[in-house]
Amino acid sequence: MKIAVLPGDGIGTEIVAEAVKVLNVLDLKFEMETADVGGVAYDHHGHPLPEATLKLAKEADAVLFGAVGDWKYDKLERQFRPEQAILGLRKNLGLFANFRPAICYEQLTHASSLKPELVAGLDILIIRELTGDIYFGQPRGRRQSPDGAFQGAEEAFDTMRYARPEIERIAHVAFQAARKRGKKVTSVDKANVLETFQFWKDVVTEVGQQYPDVKLDHMYVDNAAMQLVKSPKSFDVVVTGNMFGDILSDEAAMLTGSIGMLPSASLNASNQGLYEPSHGSAPDIAGKGVANPLATILSAAMMLRFSLNQPQAADRIESAVKDVLSQGLRTADIWSEGTRKVGTREMGDAVVAAI
Amino acid sequence: MKIAVLPGDGIGTEIVAEAVKVLNVLDLKFEMETADVGGVAYDHHGHPLPEATLKLAKEADAVLFGAVGDWKYDKLERQFRPEQAILGLRKNLGLFANFRPAICYEQLTHASSLKPELVAGLDILIIRELTGDIYFGQPRGRRQSPDGAFQGAEEAFDTMRYARPEIERIAHVAFQAARKRGKKVTSVDKANVLETFQFWKDVVTEVGQQYPDVKLDHMYVDNAAMQLVKSPKSFDVVVTGNMFGDILSDEAAMLTGSIGMLPSASLNASNQGLYEPSHGSAPDIAGKGVANPLATILSAAMMLRFSLNQPQAADRIESAVKDVLSQGLRTADIWSEGTRKVGTREMGDAVVAAI
Ligand SMILES: CC(C)[C@H](C(=O)O)[C@@H](O)C(=O)O
Ligand SMILES: CC(C)[C@H](C(=O)O)[C@@H](O)C(=O)O
Repeated sequence: MKIAVLPGDGIGTEIVAEAVKVLNVLDLKFEMETADVGGVAYDHHGHPLPEATLKLAKEADAVLFGAVGDWKYDKLERQFRPEQAILGLRKNLGLFANFRPAICYEQLTHASSLKPELVAGLDILIIRELTGDIYFGQPRGRRQSPDGAFQGAEEAFDTMRYARPEIERIAHVAFQAARKRGKKVTSVDKANVLETFQFWKDVVTEVGQQYPDVKLDHMYVDNAAMQLVKSPKSFDVVVTGNMFGDILSDEAAMLTGSIGMLPSASLNASNQGLYEPSHGSAPDIAGKGVANPLATILSAAMMLRFSLNQPQAADRIESAVKDVLSQGLRTADIWSEGTRKVGTREMGDAVVAAI
Repeated sequence: MKIAVLPGDGIGTEIVAEAVKVLNVLDLKFEMETADVGGVAYDHHGHPLPEATLKLAKEADAVLFGAVGDWKYDKLERQFRPEQAILGLRKNLGLFANFRPAICYEQLTHASSLKPELVAGLDILIIRELTGDIYFGQPRGRRQSPDGAFQGAEEAFDTMRYARPEIERIAHVAFQAARKRGKKVTSVDKANVLETFQFWKDVVTEVGQQYPDVKLDHMYVDNAAMQLVKSPKSFDVVVTGNMFGDILSDEAAMLTGSIGMLPSASLNASNQGLYEPSHGSAPDIAGKGVANPLATILSAAMMLRFSLNQPQAADRIESAVKDVLSQGLRTADIWSEGTRKVGTREMGDAVVAAI
């Protein structure tokens, strides 16, 4: 089992170190290799996703990823900015299926912006297509406007596009995931305005016919943004495109109040995957030893389950995390009156002890 | 002062009737003419936006719009569906500036999904560009994929694009609005991924230099979707493109808990405008006399202020609405223990009485 460890920027190093520590006490044999990615890779090698890092990731069974980005890279040309590393990994490894659970941990219900009764027990799974849509669609760029009311003016443009096989495969992923859960899929589109998403809706509907045991609903993206606020528990599996998924998965994560706890997985057709916390690189608290490592530790659990075929080890990590929460340990982001505030390392150590 | 009255579908007729009633007690001289729009227009004239309706709207100083849409039109070809009417009006009248206030009414704080302390007193203004972006960008359609990994497969595509003058004019609208409020503009983009929104960010930044008294922030759309949940009151004016604005304005409206109360205005360069409630046509409660007319009545107030240059009349309506809320009158959507449930007409009558 070969794991590429890519800590990245900001708090990435600290949180990934804890996840590695947890993996190392499982009595499993991993081959782990670490490489630079993101801003630190730009600093050391002149590119956020150096050839060697990409090669390592491609050859591994799974990538354990921290986070990338820091304000100090904001002024770089787009192609050199840290986020390009994550886009490059997704594209080059074909990681089309992004799993973003939005779970409200019992002990953290109060941390949500929402009233407790709306989020208690919340458990939804957002499945975001990750290698298509307007994120990668060509052509794109700047030009003189070729037509329309502003012909001749300077303009910028991008292309949203989805081909049938891209929609089919992510739809299958969603229906199969729903079968193991609440048997309900909500496909989010904007079919009333976009050609791309009318097609999306049509294809998802077709694929749905192969899953008569799963209930399929369709919802416009603006309505989905509202219903997540109004009654998040009415969702089970949500499947949507890359752009809408970016927005809705973050909205949902924040609604839970547990964002420091939420892992994510991005898989390709052969279950090779990239695993990263849902939160970002938080440069403001980097190096202070206060970041919450649990989302990364739980991402390692997802890695064991999805890419390394070690479901029992995944279970062990997940129950250890529940244990430390029950013990009342909290990093600063999830701390509240009556619980014990701990740092990044102490939290990792507690998970190790619980295992 | 010529007003085109377009009630539309679902609850549209009922709620617009109350707004008209309110306008008629103001001792102002309006020329009002009513026409079909949306599904009902398709039923009567074979098109959701008949020529005569468009002509009427163009010749009016303002359009008072109810809502369009009903499940029974879902199977129609896109060009005949009710929503096309609203897109057609926006495009043909050049209504590029959409004002979507997200206000939490003091008496309705408890109706929000959010904890009261997060929304009490909330007052943000979302300014959405309404005639550009991927909503109208050409080319779009279905085709055989011309290139890339799925070359030859069936695909659908749309074009996101913004020209410099389109971004400049909406940016000016936002900065000018901010000057009359909290002097802060948050421009929402996805500059880390999209060429269109890197350009958007650049142009908004340039325009911002003309408004040194207004603070300008930039935020990625996924982060904005989160921050709206986490600390909605940290925003003042939000300006963004058509697609992101569609999603964020609905999210923000739902967060307030006051969605049955929220008006909207869509203006062109000569302050001709279309005014409609932020909510939809609610076919499930149509004809029952229970819909909340206040968002439409408040849209009429916005119309008086923005297009008809009658700020005092607008003030009178707005304080009358506050009065009826203080009297404890509530339609079903905003009703709670201890308040009096009233129907659509009774609510309209109460506003008239309060004026
Ligand atoms: C960093 C950025 C390119 C990325 C995205 O938009 O996909 C991030 O927001 C995410 O969701 O992983
Ligand atoms: C009906 C639809 C086309 C429209 C939009 O997407 O703009 C609506 O959602 C809105 O926000 O007014």
